Amino acid sequence: MSSRIGRMLSIQIFGESHGPAVGVTLDGLPAGFALDTDALNAFLQRRAARGSAIATARRESDLPRIVSGLRDGVTTGQPMTALFDNADTHSADYGFLPDRPRPGHADYPAWVRSAGFDDLRGSGHHSGRLTLPYAFAGGVALQLLSREGVRVGAHVLAIASERDDALDSLRPDMDALSRCHAQPVPTLDPEAGSRMYAAIMEARAAGDSLGGVVECAAVGLPAGLGAPFFEGVEAVMAAQLFSIPAVKGVEFGAGFGAAVLRGSEYNDPYVMSDGRVATARNSAGGLLGGLSNGMPIVVRAAFRPTPSISLEQQTVSLSQKAPAALAVRGRHDPCVAVRAVPVVEGAVALALLELWLERRASLPLTAREGL
Amino acid sequence: MSSRIGRMLSIQIFGESHGPAVGVTLDGLPAGFALDTDALNAFLQRRAARGSAIATARRESDLPRIVSGLRDGVTTGQPMTALFDNADTHSADYGFLPDRPRPGHADYPAWVRSAGFDDLRGSGHHSGRLTLPYAFAGGVALQLLSREGVRVGAHVLAIASERDDALDSLRPDMDALSRCHAQPVPTLDPEAGSRMYAAIMEARAAGDSLGGVVECAAVGLPAGLGAPFFEGVEAVMAAQLFSIPAVKGVEFGAGFGAAVLRGSEYNDPYVMSDGRVATARNSAGGLLGGLSNGMPIVVRAAFRPTPSISLEQQTVSLSQKAPAALAVRGRHDPCVAVRAVPVVEGAVALALLELWLERRASLPLTAREGL
Amino acid sequence: MSSRIGRMLSIQIFGESHGPAVGVTLDGLPAGFALDTDALNAFLQRRAARGSAIATARRESDLPRIVSGLRDGVTTGQPMTALFDNADTHSADYGFLPDRPRPGHADYPAWVRSAGFDDLRGSGHHSGRLTLPYAFAGGVALQLLSREGVRVGAHVLAIASERDDALDSLRPDMDALSRCHAQPVPTLDPEAGSRMYAAIMEARAAGDSLGGVVECAAVGLPAGLGAPFFEGVEAVMAAQLFSIPAVKGVEFGAGFGAAVLRGSEYNDPYVMSDGRVATARNSAGGLLGGLSNGMPIVVRAAFRPTPSISLEQQTVSLSQKAPAALAVRGRHDPCVAVRAVPVVEGAVALALLELWLERRASLPLTAREGL
Amino acid sequence: MSSRIGRMLSIQIFGESHGPAVGVTLDGLPAGFALDTDALNAFLQRRAARGSAIATARRESDLPRIVSGLRDGVTTGQPMTALFDNADTHSADYGFLPDRPRPGHADYPAWVRSAGFDDLRGSGHHSGRLTLPYAFAGGVALQLLSREGVRVGAHVLAIASERDDALDSLRPDMDALSRCHAQPVPTLDPEAGSRMYAAIMEARAAGDSLGGVVECAAVGLPAGLGAPFFEGVEAVMAAQLFSIPAVKGVEFGAGFGAAVLRGSEYNDPYVMSDGRVATARNSAGGLLGGLSNGMPIVVRAAFRPTPSISLEQQTVSLSQKAPAALAVRGRHDPCVAVRAVPVVEGAVALALLELWLERRASLPLTAREGL
Repeated sequence: MSSRIGRMLSIQIFGESHGPAVGVTLDGLPAGFALDTDALNAFLQRRAARGSAIATARRESDLPRIVSGLRDGVTTGQPMTALFDNADTHSADYGFLPDRPRPGHADYPAWVRSAGFDDLRGSGHHSGRLTLPYAFAGGVALQLLSREGVRVGAHVLAIASERDDALDSLRPDMDALSRCHAQPVPTLDPEAGSRMYAAIMEARAAGDSLGGVVECAAVGLPAGLGAPFFEGVEAVMAAQLFSIPAVKGVEFGAGFGAAVLRGSEYNDPYVMSDGRVATARNSAGGLLGGLSNGMPIVVRAAFRPTPSISLEQQTVSLSQKAPAALAVRGRHDPCVAVRAVPVVEGAVALALLELWLERRASLPLTAREGL
Repeated sequence: MSSRIGRMLSIQIFGESHGPAVGVTLDGLPAGFALDTDALNAFLQRRAARGSAIATARRESDLPRIVSGLRDGVTTGQPMTALFDNADTHSADYGFLPDRPRPGHADYPAWVRSAGFDDLRGSGHHSGRLTLPYAFAGGVALQLLSREGVRVGAHVLAIASERDDALDSLRPDMDALSRCHAQPVPTLDPEAGSRMYAAIMEARAAGDSLGGVVECAAVGLPAGLGAPFFEGVEAVMAAQLFSIPAVKGVEFGAGFGAAVLRGSEYNDPYVMSDGRVATARNSAGGLLGGLSNGMPIVVRAAFRPTPSISLEQQTVSLSQKAPAALAVRGRHDPCVAVRAVPVVEGAVALALLELWLERRASLPLTAREGL
Repeated sequence: MSSRIGRMLSIQIFGESHGPAVGVTLDGLPAGFALDTDALNAFLQRRAARGSAIATARRESDLPRIVSGLRDGVTTGQPMTALFDNADTHSADYGFLPDRPRPGHADYPAWVRSAGFDDLRGSGHHSGRLTLPYAFAGGVALQLLSREGVRVGAHVLAIASERDDALDSLRPDMDALSRCHAQPVPTLDPEAGSRMYAAIMEARAAGDSLGGVVECAAVGLPAGLGAPFFEGVEAVMAAQLFSIPAVKGVEFGAGFGAAVLRGSEYNDPYVMSDGRVATARNSAGGLLGGLSNGMPIVVRAAFRPTPSISLEQQTVSLSQKAPAALAVRGRHDPCVAVRAVPVVEGAVALALLELWLERRASLPLTAREGL
Repeated sequence: MSSRIGRMLSIQIFGESHGPAVGVTLDGLPAGFALDTDALNAFLQRRAARGSAIATARRESDLPRIVSGLRDGVTTGQPMTALFDNADTHSADYGFLPDRPRPGHADYPAWVRSAGFDDLRGSGHHSGRLTLPYAFAGGVALQLLSREGVRVGAHVLAIASERDDALDSLRPDMDALSRCHAQPVPTLDPEAGSRMYAAIMEARAAGDSLGGVVECAAVGLPAGLGAPFFEGVEAVMAAQLFSIPAVKGVEFGAGFGAAVLRGSEYNDPYVMSDGRVATARNSAGGLLGGLSNGMPIVVRAAFRPTPSISLEQQTVSLSQKAPAALAVRGRHDPCVAVRAVPVVEGAVALALLELWLERRASLPLTAREGL
């Protein structure tokens, strides 16, 4: 049961890259939410990177067909399923599979796991194509959260050796994050984005690919979301983020940098701010022991370079148990981190919505609220 | 439902730091496994850091009382519950709670979440004390995996600015990892361990604390463990690791370092090795698209510094909504990363056991095996 | 999260009666199973009751469009999603909703639960139409089980006051069960089926409807399937059967009849039969304390009469909070128990497949099998 | 993972009849609930049937030791674990196991399932002893529900051929149900209880045992609890009830009787009653399509006779694969239905609390409530 997650809000993705369609079912959405489909499509187009020279040449409309759970554009409270047809597939590009697995891809372990029965064309169910229905789910979650005053936004923090400005962890500029999504490479500092764009073009020209880091912030959250241990915000959010193909690292707040700090440098002092409890620093990225403390959540995800490159690589022939060479044709992004920005926003939103629904169920009993 | 995890093997932890006992129930263990309780207790003593000058002064036997699921030392296949009594509690040390929450602790969000009903003495259910029953579960998982030829071992890679040698990701020296656990600070290079020890003693003397990084390897795994997306090894293992209090970052293989590599540098070329498929490099940390590829799994977890320090810190009085000063007495480790080493090994083992059981259930249908 | 079930094999159904489509996703199917789509369609046609005078006049092809999880007709081990388009919908027939809820239908509580946002046309997601994708899932499970030598078959035991012969609980005639499905009302005794058919025609003519009982047997099972308590065969199977709209009772073996027996009459004595352990009687319906004992499983499900009848009924106007009369037009089966026979077989198969997969994961450790 | 249930409220039971203790963990309880431990103990004593001539001679205090999740008697919102020590065990009574399995018991399939590793003494984890921690969980749920104005009560409807008056499904007399629990056999008509008592004494004298039916009602519920399909009230409640050892049948409202009714007789007409929507009849037992309609829920569970009887029974020797005779000594209730009454009430309450918490999470979005 590899492609389902969520205790309160169940997300089930399905489909293969070269099958008839990919899709997703969300089960557990509250009734009565008016979905803004135009905004949702615009969000999905950010992932599509339509026409960008640094994106895959594969052309799909990426428009969802919502077949359930909506009536007159409003959620019914029943399962919502969205389908995306696959049109532009070149299965011929994958004739080398499964015999010559691509380095860095899931081809070989997927072939072993399925005893050869898995569909590996275009990476099948393992394809980045599946981040489309996943982003659909994330887009729905983002709209539900924004209705509650929660904003989530991400940017490309780094690609190869180029870096963007880091977010202000106490007051992340959410408007700047929204604006920068118009750039080919969404960065707070447009210059950094231009340098990253040039680096990507250079790598593509060299038949190579690049990795990167996406940084995301969520603001407007109440304190007390999450739980200790297994439903801590970090655990639930990391499970979502590591489900995005290519993510190899996740850190919150100071993250790995916290390892070199002293407690007196790391601990965020409490202050009163406009009568509310706040912290004077945000090393914790808004998260203490699995619980939100009301400060902005700051999280970063590291993406490995795109495994499919046209440079010749060394692999083996599984049939001949012998070395073999491979140059992957196919159509691929030279740097997945760019198009991953909305996918990361969606993953963060899905984790927050899951925990928000969990919060509704676990509200303490007081005079004014019952079970 | 914050303290339960696992689809195939359910781990339910319970208890508060200053309550009668903490414990854990494992439901889903196969029958017929002879548990080595001496080895298990020795493993738990590694976490206890008995007598070490750099560990908390709290004294508990940390011996489990197993009340179900075992007969004559062999698993019955029924739920196994282990209890650890709390004996040495000084609740008086926490008189400042909940009014003056400790910076870096879950006190404040836990108080908000529970509308004041949570038990915060000694951090209650949020306490590092809960890593004891969790480590018990991990120790059981480690024994089951070792019976299958899987070895898991960890060391302290870094504390503050001191670093140990990194593991050889192609051939991690598991024997060296076992041996180093005899050191006060388990490191591959004893000199590094001594420097870390000195740094911790210095920080404690200064009333401060330090963060660190723990690196863990797992070897002897087959290819094809895990799944794409939500039950990928990375997602499942990260959920376990981020459930350890104080973990703020998790990375696999090259991790965040992968972001600065090119595909041609990152992708691990396939080679034949003694008739088996292997890779000539292990940037992926043994994991491709959520699936194990048969190479060693390498994962690192970043730990923030211990939040409880005796240096005076700035907080607020929740009752007076005014600034307040706080110097935490209590008894605490100046660096949790040290005692966390076996906890990390257990977390990694629990993720691998979960996915191993998932593998048993999802084995492909072939002539020789039925459902 | 109302429409998903299964820990080992996840079944997610979705869709509304008058929406674009209904469908289902199965996640957790083993790879390498060659699905017989012709047999599956034939199975679904049994539910469609095409052309039968006692079935709804609604006309749908009921042919599944499988969009994922199959390659060249063989399962890949990835999620399998099947869609069924809705073509023949008469939403105009439901103009009285939500104001005048139909007695016996979910209209009123669904309207309350969703604060009026649910889609009630044709009963929406609550419709018997959803038993089509559910039966698809059941049909897949039946094929997987039959590959393992497990046969599942059901018949109509009773409609109104007419009764069929009960199954022989020690040696149910599975061939006779298969044969009888060619009858308009599948019964072991064709005469009983004819009498039931006449009773249904009479009720329809009177603008009324009838209830009934479906009896199902499963043979070829090993001993030791299931578990005590919450994953007992009875608990898991009952959850599936009570998920079929209209089921109001479920019993195993002697069922309610066991309440009037003495232990000496009820307990099934053990005997050796061809060197195998068997029982000389099967009051337990093959189930002891949640576990299969290797004898045939016998289960019965009671169906209430179809709530939609053309006789005038008493209801209320929710807007006017006043009594109102209602005669339901729409197109409905006068007795759902008839078309429910394959749905019951599928529900039983889904429960058994779930537990069979659970068994694979929980096999005891012995010399010859590892984790 | 056989002994855990619940998506919103997780119930994990553990322990063996002749092990050190049995217990349960509830994870998901809201914080801030003041548990009435005296009332809870009194509830558990109803199950214990202390001193009754018709109950087992086994003597246990049956007092829970709550080791977590409560502070000053109020729930903290963290996992609550209760333990019950086993004191009075006569393992010697079970020397015939596993070689000569008891007819009607799980001995044989449990032995097969566990490859002989399960602990069968006193039925081990399969024992009715486990209904004690389960009843504890149920008792907690009953208190939480009663705080919301929901009352749950049950009585013995039938034992062998003796019957009590059935509940009035429109206005069940909840006070009468509470009162009757003082009787050795709780019935609405004390005469019926006396006849049942005599029948049990006669059966015990004959070395035999009896079955029975327990009927339960729940009142004070809102409309709209539950869901279609897999989280329908019927499905969720039946999974709880069939988890009680010895239950072989469950029906709601008219249940199996609905099969012989016509729609015009079965459908419950809607009426306005004190400005509220109600029904003029309650054939549906308060449940329409998985959803509560605000009317009383009425459910019945059929219990098989106690399998352990002192009359000689026919079994087999598993070692000799030959017929063998068996007269079970041990200490057993001649009719489990009597002590099962509070267990049934608890099972019904656990299902309702699960769905009540689900309801909190899935409340529709309206102007006045947010996520």
